[in-house]
Amino acid sequence: MLGQMMSQPLLISSLIAHAERYHPEGEIISVSTTGGVEETNWGKVAENARRLGSALTDLGLSPQARCGTIAWNNRRHLEIYFGTSGAGFVCHTINPRLFADQLIYILNHAADEVLFIDKTFVPLVAAIRDKLEHLKYLVLMSGPDAEAAEALPGLIFYDELVASGNAGFDWPNLDENTASSLCYTSGTTGNPKGVLYSHRSTVLHSFGINMADSIAISARDIVMAVVPMFHVNAWGCPYASAMTGARMVLPGPNLDGASLVGLIDTYRVSLALGVPTIWQGLLAAAKKSGSELTSLERTVVGGSACPPSMIKTFREKYGVETIHAWGMTEMSPVGSVNKPLAKHGELPEDAQHKLRENQGRPVFGVELEIWGDEGKPLPHDGETQGALVTRGHWILDAYYQSDRDSTLRDGWFDTGDIATMDKDGYITIRDRAKDIIKSGGEWISSVELENIAIAHPDLADAAVIGATHPKWDERPVLIAVKAEGADPSEADILKVFEDQIAKWQVPDRVVFAEALPRNATGKVLKRDLRDRFGDVLMQGES
Amino acid sequence: MLGQMMSQPLLISSLIAHAERYHPEGEIISVSTTGGVEETNWGKVAENARRLGSALTDLGLSPQARCGTIAWNNRRHLEIYFGTSGAGFVCHTINPRLFADQLIYILNHAADEVLFIDKTFVPLVAAIRDKLEHLKYLVLMSGPDAEAAEALPGLIFYDELVASGNAGFDWPNLDENTASSLCYTSGTTGNPKGVLYSHRSTVLHSFGINMADSIAISARDIVMAVVPMFHVNAWGCPYASAMTGARMVLPGPNLDGASLVGLIDTYRVSLALGVPTIWQGLLAAAKKSGSELTSLERTVVGGSACPPSMIKTFREKYGVETIHAWGMTEMSPVGSVNKPLAKHGELPEDAQHKLRENQGRPVFGVELEIWGDEGKPLPHDGETQGALVTRGHWILDAYYQSDRDSTLRDGWFDTGDIATMDKDGYITIRDRAKDIIKSGGEWISSVELENIAIAHPDLADAAVIGATHPKWDERPVLIAVKAEGADPSEADILKVFEDQIAKWQVPDRVVFAEALPRNATGKVLKRDLRDRFGDVLMQGES
Ligand SMILES: Nc1ncnc2c1ncn2[C@@H]1O[C@H](COP(=O)(O)OP(=O)(O)OP(=O)(O)O)[C@@H](O)[C@H]1O
Ligand SMILES: Nc1ncnc2c1ncn2[C@@H]1O[C@H](COP(=O)(O)OP(=O)(O)OP(=O)(O)O)[C@@H](O)[C@H]1O
Ligand SMILES: [Mg+2]
Ligand SMILES: [Mg+2]
Repeated sequence: MLGQMMSQPLLISSLIAHAERYHPEGEIISVSTTGGVEETNWGKVAENARRLGSALTDLGLSPQARCGTIAWNNRRHLEIYFGTSGAGFVCHTINPRLFADQLIYILNHAADEVLFIDKTFVPLVAAIRDKLEHLKYLVLMSGPDAEAAEALPGLIFYDELVASGNAGFDWPNLDENTASSLCYTSGTTGNPKGVLYSHRSTVLHSFGINMADSIAISARDIVMAVVPMFHVNAWGCPYASAMTGARMVLPGPNLDGASLVGLIDTYRVSLALGVPTIWQGLLAAAKKSGSELTSLERTVVGGSACPPSMIKTFREKYGVETIHAWGMTEMSPVGSVNKPLAKHGELPEDAQHKLRENQGRPVFGVELEIWGDEGKPLPHDGETQGALVTRGHWILDAYYQSDRDSTLRDGWFDTGDIATMDKDGYITIRDRAKDIIKSGGEWISSVELENIAIAHPDLADAAVIGATHPKWDERPVLIAVKAEGADPSEADILKVFEDQIAKWQVPDRVVFAEALPRNATGKVLKRDLRDRFGDVLMQGES
Repeated sequence: MLGQMMSQPLLISSLIAHAERYHPEGEIISVSTTGGVEETNWGKVAENARRLGSALTDLGLSPQARCGTIAWNNRRHLEIYFGTSGAGFVCHTINPRLFADQLIYILNHAADEVLFIDKTFVPLVAAIRDKLEHLKYLVLMSGPDAEAAEALPGLIFYDELVASGNAGFDWPNLDENTASSLCYTSGTTGNPKGVLYSHRSTVLHSFGINMADSIAISARDIVMAVVPMFHVNAWGCPYASAMTGARMVLPGPNLDGASLVGLIDTYRVSLALGVPTIWQGLLAAAKKSGSELTSLERTVVGGSACPPSMIKTFREKYGVETIHAWGMTEMSPVGSVNKPLAKHGELPEDAQHKLRENQGRPVFGVELEIWGDEGKPLPHDGETQGALVTRGHWILDAYYQSDRDSTLRDGWFDTGDIATMDKDGYITIRDRAKDIIKSGGEWISSVELENIAIAHPDLADAAVIGATHPKWDERPVLIAVKAEGADPSEADILKVFEDQIAKWQVPDRVVFAEALPRNATGKVLKRDLRDRFGDVLMQGES
């Protein structure tokens, strides 16, 4: 016997329809690619999304045609998020910092029929356009632009396309499992792989992140999505904001610290989301300018481990709560969020702060487990580390154009991360399986060593890799970038580890470098570091 | 093309499994029916729910057999919520304060095969048992009890039933649209009608109420469900608490103000949910005892209009935020919740407080609209009033054993309430369509008059009805209950309306009564008042 409740599909169009109906006046601040700031609101974004959906429908694309975007965070990108998916197409966000070969591969692999680009990327697209096998329409995200039209013959202009659409367009009533969007992983450990989200997974994920113990976006928030819209749906915050009526600030192309501080202070941003490197820049800029970031209440930090020293600076200097979250492209992305439990309120303050440093607990909708060899569940004791596996409503079933069997193991997805879990479900990411250092049968977490090193005042950046060692197989080596004006010695740096970890975990060497290689989402490319420095201990031995 | 995300049903069992896995130690405080307080936790509740599910499965009931409960808010009731639905049966909560005839009607209409009862209700059930046509098993929610066994031959004891079940029972993998629970409306305006919820509607509703702008239950909360578990799933808070790991306080049979104040202070309750009459008792008791309700952060008030004076007392005397919510049995129940928008922060404090008085905005997942005659949508101007209609993921499609066509109108459900909606989606419930006073073609809101009257210090309770009038068809009459020790005159009372509303809206008469007739959920039975006092103005005329 079935229940007797209304049956309605969970659709992305219902998110923007909700915004249109119940908070049309909620403001959207958008930094243009060509300079200047536009102010719009959810009502106008919704109208443009409808017009775009209608215009795309009239173009006669394939069902669920992929519509690529190579663009910054701005209001047109926001309209495209809703207009494409809402009308039944797939919004495929692409990372512009990929190499040309990777871009071509991804655009062809996804079979994109439409490509929306920001002005910045005209030269990039001009160079690869001939190799894009499925492309039918190329759209510049602006009004008419003669210069761009010359570089890209046949170019369509977004504003004209939208104007040609029907503002009264009715969103189609789709199966909620229809594909809605596509994103490739960051390519930190290898080639990017595609993840094809559905309407249902996206709406459920939005509910998940809006819960009180999660990111908890509310209509009182002014949300700045610093995380790029080409990186896992900007962590879902455009959908979650539409769902609640939060105002948004879309920072455009300039993500340097000074620009972000300016936006936060001017537009009274209350909540900002981004990766640790971005916040490093922001904190440095705030210190320099003397801004007190008064409006900022909380930052969501994820994508890489958030150094405890950063959480502390936010808390002590700016009164900002850091919400440490963990996730993956394969998980829409949110898997776990660090929020306290009631019982933690009874602990001494230091202990409470300590508990906020790890990657948090699974949000309802996501199951997390840690496995030993042969998929045996390990104890939730906060000590035993194993492969972190997951299952849930917004977790991938198979990579795009791949099959389930090659993606899952007994119905679970192996995240590739190594973690511990305590009895309250809090996980600590020890490392990526590929990066963990295996020293004489013991595992050393490169992340833990990095968190300690980065607190050294003379360092601007730090990464630890496992370098090949004749006796111990691997030993940790610290690759360090000196802070501006500082000139520490190797011994100075190593002192920071004293009393913080067991002696046998202390890195064998410190190698100074000019900068760390990072990918487009700000993550350190450890395989590049291993290629360069993986032999330093062997040289010493020879 | 479908997305490539994991497909998992939205099931009530996944809520309790989440609690079991990620916050087994979260405490549940339960006041026993027979006195005393039990302390248990989510882990043990989950284990008992599994055992119960296993034991019920072994009884060989029909698929989705209805399992009735006539019980207070306690931990066994909580286990039954999850154990019955989780195992594929339907949890049918029954209001013990109904008349015997209504109970018999409902139990037979629902075809309950099992009935779980608290000790309090042994006499009540003994009296009607012979008339229950489908009943196979009668379960007393306690350990063995010779006295009860004598009154009810064949009685099973809950603790024994649970002990016989298997703690390792695997929750079945059901279709998410399977019926999960059943509740009849409060019977304020007529006979109770059944609403048959599904697993999907229940889980989506839980997400809806846990969002930041909604009730926002978090793992930091200690939640006291004062609203009975037989009243629309205790407004969903047992499910929503399992979802997040909130601790719970289940107050058992005594809902008088002094008992509730005691529980709040002893167990440090942070969030409590209930109807206005309950809070009236609680505020009186707190005043008497001098309790400052220090732990209490917010109260959710709904079920009837929350008087602004109550919101004010909570805020000014106790620093408690009142969350005014509106809903119906037919809506699982939450439809709208009053939380502020970012822009409201810029208003003067008085204006901010004023905005918190209405019934709030629709939670994502629920659409609300106001219609004029012939289903024409009316403007969202905060002034125009019309029939409040709804549509959404947790709204009924048809009453139990009834059909869609007789329940819906163009796919929308007419709530029977009259409301206005402003441009931000905030609704104000003016009245029930059946209670609104039609005076010479103009509508007068009985709720608005009651809110003003109840603020009079000499009144303990107040209700306004439309009394028949020879010239104006209907005119408002105030039925007032004097406060203890006070003896106001009719003129004293009428003064309170001066300058608050237009003259023509002021009640024609004040009639003093000993008490107001209320139904089991604390709502005033206006049809009883109309039967008694509907002619007072005609008598005056004669
Ligand atoms: N809070 C965090 N702490 C530590 N690591 C994190 C955190 N959040 C994310 N990560 C890391 O980021 C990974 C997910 O990143 P993403 O999906 O962007 O692609 P990637 O794994 O970097 O790239 P690829 O899979 O292509 O190698 C996680 O598996 C984890 O290793
Ligand atoms: N915050 C509120 N303000 C005003 N009225 C409310 C509020 N919350 C609920 N109500 C009233 O309660 C009704 C829903 O109550 P419920 O489902 O418990 O049964 P009922 O309508 O009282 O009984 P029946 O439908 O059997 O007559 C709403 O339709 C509305 O009239
Ligand atoms: Mg990865
Ligand atoms: Mg009703």
